[in-house]
Amino acid sequence: MSHGTKVPMPTLERLATYLTVLTDLKMRNVETISSADIETRTGVNAAQFRKDLSYFGEFGKPGIGYDVQELHSRISKILNLENRQPVLLMGAGNLGSALAGYQPLRAENFQIVAAFDNNPAKIGTQLWDLTIKDIATIEEENKLLGARMGIIAVPAAAAQDAADRLVKAKVVTILNFAPVLLKLPPTVTVRNVDFVQELAVLAFHLPDSG
Amino acid sequence: MSHGTKVPMPTLERLATYLTVLTDLKMRNVETISSADIETRTGVNAAQFRKDLSYFGEFGKPGIGYDVQELHSRISKILNLENRQPVLLMGAGNLGSALAGYQPLRAENFQIVAAFDNNPAKIGTQLWDLTIKDIATIEEENKLLGARMGIIAVPAAAAQDAADRLVKAKVVTILNFAPVLLKLPPTVTVRNVDFVQELAVLAFHLPDSG
Repeated sequence: MSHGTKVPMPTLERLATYLTVLTDLKMRNVETISSADIETRTGVNAAQFRKDLSYFGEFGKPGIGYDVQELHSRISKILNLENRQPVLLMGAGNLGSALAGYQPLRAENFQIVAAFDNNPAKIGTQLWDLTIKDIATIEEENKLLGARMGIIAVPAAAAQDAADRLVKAKVVTILNFAPVLLKLPPTVTVRNVDFVQELAVLAFHLPDSG
Repeated sequence: MSHGTKVPMPTLERLATYLTVLTDLKMRNVETISSADIETRTGVNAAQFRKDLSYFGEFGKPGIGYDVQELHSRISKILNLENRQPVLLMGAGNLGSALAGYQPLRAENFQIVAAFDNNPAKIGTQLWDLTIKDIATIEEENKLLGARMGIIAVPAAAAQDAADRLVKAKVVTILNFAPVLLKLPPTVTVRNVDFVQELAVLAFHLPDSG
């Protein structure tokens, strides 16, 4: 879904949070939700929630609240998650394995459709329901799979090569777990998750001991 | 280390990035680095880098650059990572296992010193070099371990209980991987990593196909 107006990044991040909450409510057959419920479950206040939705049109009915199914379906559509979204996984190590088996991704329509590694000992072995493929075959494989999203879960030293291969295979969005700055064409969108960074920021906040 | 001035969060996040780069340089026996090198390796421009450091005093020598060992040691100290920082892991599933085996954490002095789970089939088994412990024993265990940092890598439904147990065990900073809003005392600092949210924001940026 393309959007004329520029949506702020924090709004996008919160939309993803609302979607997770709505998926949970849907599974528990809850039919309506108020913005006050959203606040309790996400920490986002009701005014902010309504403002976030206002970028995308009219939602909800005054005094009644939001229809869970409808809101879920509309936010899914905004985030391009209405249909299954195929994802390529680079790196079939511990982290790659954890991601490939991570149930909440599937619940939101993300599906890791192929896992690639450059370790001959791993190629051909199973990773959950996938057979690990040689990273050298990614272009060919993705001609059939048509994935436009990729995850990099390889060691830092191999991350740029993995990124280059994803780009060659026509992937345009990358979630990078390697603690390196990837050099990518401007047409590719990347987000970085850095566990060390997250813990280091927390460590800074430790009170002095004794 | 306590700080009189309030340090902006983006500065803290960048400090952690600089530390990762410096650790790598140290291991490769590089002795000095310029702010231009920092820019190439992190994407942070030289002026921003100098501004980030200025919160913590004087660094570097004009025309010479920064001594890698010294800068590493000072940033480590700022982030409370000069000495080994023990961390408790809640959840010994796939994600917990990947985190416990994640080498870059160890390189920055984080050490997962105990792993807890509530699954009787897992308790007593090995997770890398750790024996998985019953989550019910965490308070007792941490009296000896003295960890003040915790990681939550349990399913969403178990996350609040895991957080409550960490707090009771005197942990004051938590890295939470479960896609739920944790209710915590104001004395506890939390950061959330949400894989679904990261991928959903990327999916929004996918161009329309065909």
